[in-house]
Amino acid sequence: MTIEEIVKSKIRTIENFPKEGILFRDITTAIKDKETLPLIIDYLCDQFKGLKIDYIAGIESRGFIFGMPMAYKLGCGFVPVRKPNKLPAETIAQEYKLEYGTDKIEIHKDAFGVGDNVLIVDDLLATGGTAEAAAKLVKKTGANLVGMGFLIELQALKGRDKLNNCGEIISMLKY
Amino acid sequence: MTIEEIVKSKIRTIENFPKEGILFRDITTAIKDKETLPLIIDYLCDQFKGLKIDYIAGIESRGFIFGMPMAYKLGCGFVPVRKPNKLPAETIAQEYKLEYGTDKIEIHKDAFGVGDNVLIVDDLLATGGTAEAAAKLVKKTGANLVGMGFLIELQALKGRDKLNNCGEIISMLKY
Repeated sequence: MTIEEIVKSKIRTIENFPKEGILFRDITTAIKDKETLPLIIDYLCDQFKGLKIDYIAGIESRGFIFGMPMAYKLGCGFVPVRKPNKLPAETIAQEYKLEYGTDKIEIHKDAFGVGDNVLIVDDLLATGGTAEAAAKLVKKTGANLVGMGFLIELQALKGRDKLNNCGEIISMLKY
Repeated sequence: MTIEEIVKSKIRTIENFPKEGILFRDITTAIKDKETLPLIIDYLCDQFKGLKIDYIAGIESRGFIFGMPMAYKLGCGFVPVRKPNKLPAETIAQEYKLEYGTDKIEIHKDAFGVGDNVLIVDDLLATGGTAEAAAKLVKKTGANLVGMGFLIELQALKGRDKLNNCGEIISMLKY
């Protein structure tokens, strides 16, 4: 078995969550397994080892789960991208479309310096709406987006097509 | 300077967030600093090095930020304690009191095995309401709560008094 297959075997699939007709890929069974947790973090870090990374930006809240241990291992800083009204200092915001309506994410305005190299991390690349919004936010701060890392990519939803000029896009598990 | 003083110097204090009269201790300035991030994780891990830990349970969402790199470093599993309706499989829930009204947190029913050793991690020990609820949840699963680790403790709020029979209670920074 490859590392990807081992990790995939630890992802639990739950039908009809959060709503009818959705197959939810549950990462909690992978990260509660002490053998699998480091396989994920080490794999994702390895994919970006050619890049100079100053900060990992993790998207709330499962992006925190994967992004923080990556920052710890890579020896860089960590910056949270959060839902509205959670960050206490001055923020910039980015709206994005949902199936019905819109949502918004925020980042601290002073999170990065101009030209700092930033890697965005989240658990899942689905339609790409949140990822695209996070990429726009990082660029608005004046930082340099060097790539994006995801544990899971739902390929049929073509989220990757929204992520132009976002550096290296890596996902560990394809569904 | 001690390690605690170095880390404290990186915490930003923001007045009147999330509401009038509150002094908010902003951890984002500490974890974006690549020198400070590992000081926090290594310090918290060191405090519990005498314990056998099977799982870290991190409380949504800043508990994910500190709990996951600790699990990575300690070589144990990670289990998220989440706000309602976020976890996809069968959960158990625990209500707790807020200043006005109540709130609820959940954990997967099958998160731990009976007798597994669990360490709860969060960023902040304030009134102790969330921490106490998380402790009750872990105990309800049949696991063994060996301790609780916090980056910050607001001592005047006496949250620690709510945490009886919760193992070793450690906070890195006291205010």
